[in-house]
Amino acid sequence: MTAAIASRPAPGQTAADLVTIDNIRAAAARIAPYAIRTPLIESPRLNDWLGFRLLVKAECLQHTGSFKLRGALNTIMSLDDSVTDVVAYSSGNHAQAVARAASLRGMRAVIVMPEDAPAMKIEGTKSYGAEVVTYDRYNESREEIGGTIATERGADLIAPFEDVRVMCGQGTIGLEIAEQCAEMNIQPDHVISCCGGGGLIAGVSVATRALLPNAKIWAAEPADFDDTIRSLASGQIERVDPSHRSICDAVVTPAPGEMTFSINRTTLSGGFGVSDDLVLRVMATAFKHLKIVVEPGGAVALAAALDGRLPTGTNCAVAVVSGGNVDEEMFSRALAAGPLV
Amino acid sequence: MTAAIASRPAPGQTAADLVTIDNIRAAAARIAPYAIRTPLIESPRLNDWLGFRLLVKAECLQHTGSFKLRGALNTIMSLDDSVTDVVAYSSGNHAQAVARAASLRGMRAVIVMPEDAPAMKIEGTKSYGAEVVTYDRYNESREEIGGTIATERGADLIAPFEDVRVMCGQGTIGLEIAEQCAEMNIQPDHVISCCGGGGLIAGVSVATRALLPNAKIWAAEPADFDDTIRSLASGQIERVDPSHRSICDAVVTPAPGEMTFSINRTTLSGGFGVSDDLVLRVMATAFKHLKIVVEPGGAVALAAALDGRLPTGTNCAVAVVSGGNVDEEMFSRALAAGPLV
Repeated sequence: MTAAIASRPAPGQTAADLVTIDNIRAAAARIAPYAIRTPLIESPRLNDWLGFRLLVKAECLQHTGSFKLRGALNTIMSLDDSVTDVVAYSSGNHAQAVARAASLRGMRAVIVMPEDAPAMKIEGTKSYGAEVVTYDRYNESREEIGGTIATERGADLIAPFEDVRVMCGQGTIGLEIAEQCAEMNIQPDHVISCCGGGGLIAGVSVATRALLPNAKIWAAEPADFDDTIRSLASGQIERVDPSHRSICDAVVTPAPGEMTFSINRTTLSGGFGVSDDLVLRVMATAFKHLKIVVEPGGAVALAAALDGRLPTGTNCAVAVVSGGNVDEEMFSRALAAGPLV
Repeated sequence: MTAAIASRPAPGQTAADLVTIDNIRAAAARIAPYAIRTPLIESPRLNDWLGFRLLVKAECLQHTGSFKLRGALNTIMSLDDSVTDVVAYSSGNHAQAVARAASLRGMRAVIVMPEDAPAMKIEGTKSYGAEVVTYDRYNESREEIGGTIATERGADLIAPFEDVRVMCGQGTIGLEIAEQCAEMNIQPDHVISCCGGGGLIAGVSVATRALLPNAKIWAAEPADFDDTIRSLASGQIERVDPSHRSICDAVVTPAPGEMTFSINRTTLSGGFGVSDDLVLRVMATAFKHLKIVVEPGGAVALAAALDGRLPTGTNCAVAVVSGGNVDEEMFSRALAAGPLV
């Protein structure tokens, strides 16, 4: 088993010292037996309509239905053999990912989930053998609840994004994008990823900057959860109005992480906010043209790309579709909204 | 441009003399620049539930939304440069595939489609630049209409399955399954594919017999369109009662082809008939666990696998999901029917 690796920088270090292309490559080797190399897919009809080539990194096809498995695996597979219990808090995708990764390693997992998380995400988390504890997303602190459980049980707490092991795991998506573009002899102008707490795009942007230095990297967020976009503009961490709501449950975090933002402020070119109505139509567009099941939060990067937000003159862009864990009811709403084209 | 190749056996030859692993390899080289190598996907939760490992060849992710692009490309890319027009008849997937392949070669295409074909398939065919002529599926002969148009325009008629070029193109799926299983160090016990006229499974079974000689190959059909299953049992071509109906529009052919059956009778171990109700629930199961959009006809092989039809003692099976071209309305019916697990 791989030796334990640090979850956060030591004094005198920054997150950027640990979220490196070398550590992302190490993560790729660590997770390879358990995660799949998701395909980069496209639709000639969508490309014709857009006027540029759009490649979709389909992380909805990842085991557990989202990219989160990568960070969970990188963390759990690097823990010491003495660790028997892990704890995580999550709206649902990190939950399922930690539950699955823990079961692969024979560890017990407790997952703290909002009581209004999609039913299928709670069911999925339980199906991987984890114990689920629910909380009130708007009035309780998941960090506190998770921390208390971790202390009580002597468990390792796996944060959803403020953990360099998690960021390096998510960064393997950027590594694969670069490899797959090289195989297809493509030089993308832009890479767009959704952004909740910023762990996915931190890892992806580090890998992209190293391997596709000419590509710009953009964050996509729900318009009412544009904390990273505003933070990039102001240069400091900005928070979301706690009264805001969105159907994009996977990415409705209140603020960027300190570690993730310390990276993203140096690697991103900016971001795009997209409406929930657009997200539903983009889910229907992916249904029709790409034949993949995309959840609301997983659709925001694709929404920005399809809505013409990229700079004019774009020849090729890559959009990360981060997950597909969506209830039948929400997906039916998307089908009723109808595709953009 | 590749020299023209035969569409059917010369006197003294059989279809099996032309649908060979060597010609399937040649097809793979011919179509590689235009088709994608679809992934072999799986769900750990489905595997646990089934008690064996089920790999899904996701041809719904193929360009034009179905495997049919492979046979159309192999045919059209092998035509002489003097050919300017092609004609095809199809319920919708072969239609879109021929339209797309013709547009890539700069040829004109006329497609004869049933007037009750799914709207999205007619729209898709037109979107690739083809002219669409509709007919009454139950009272007119598409072969006659297609033949008349071909004669009038001096066009090359591309049959949906009774054409060795088409069968070799579809066989590239079997080639890829064998390659992908080798990469994953897997020896599947069974390969299941849907069966309409039998062109897909003829090509797949020839490739599978050559490269995975220990795997049995099974046909899956709608229960009321079990012409190949009954033909395999009786040893001669059996027809479907013309009063029968099914939601599986992609595979509701009246009888096996003579050429396809001459191959399939030697390569298949048998078949499984599945109900439309089961198909809807399997589409919802693929939505929930595999995150892919599957059309009714594309779900029949997966349905047979999930419904426990394979012999006991199965360790690993591969099911071909042949397409994902389904209207919002039909998909909503599947979501309402709900997943099997």
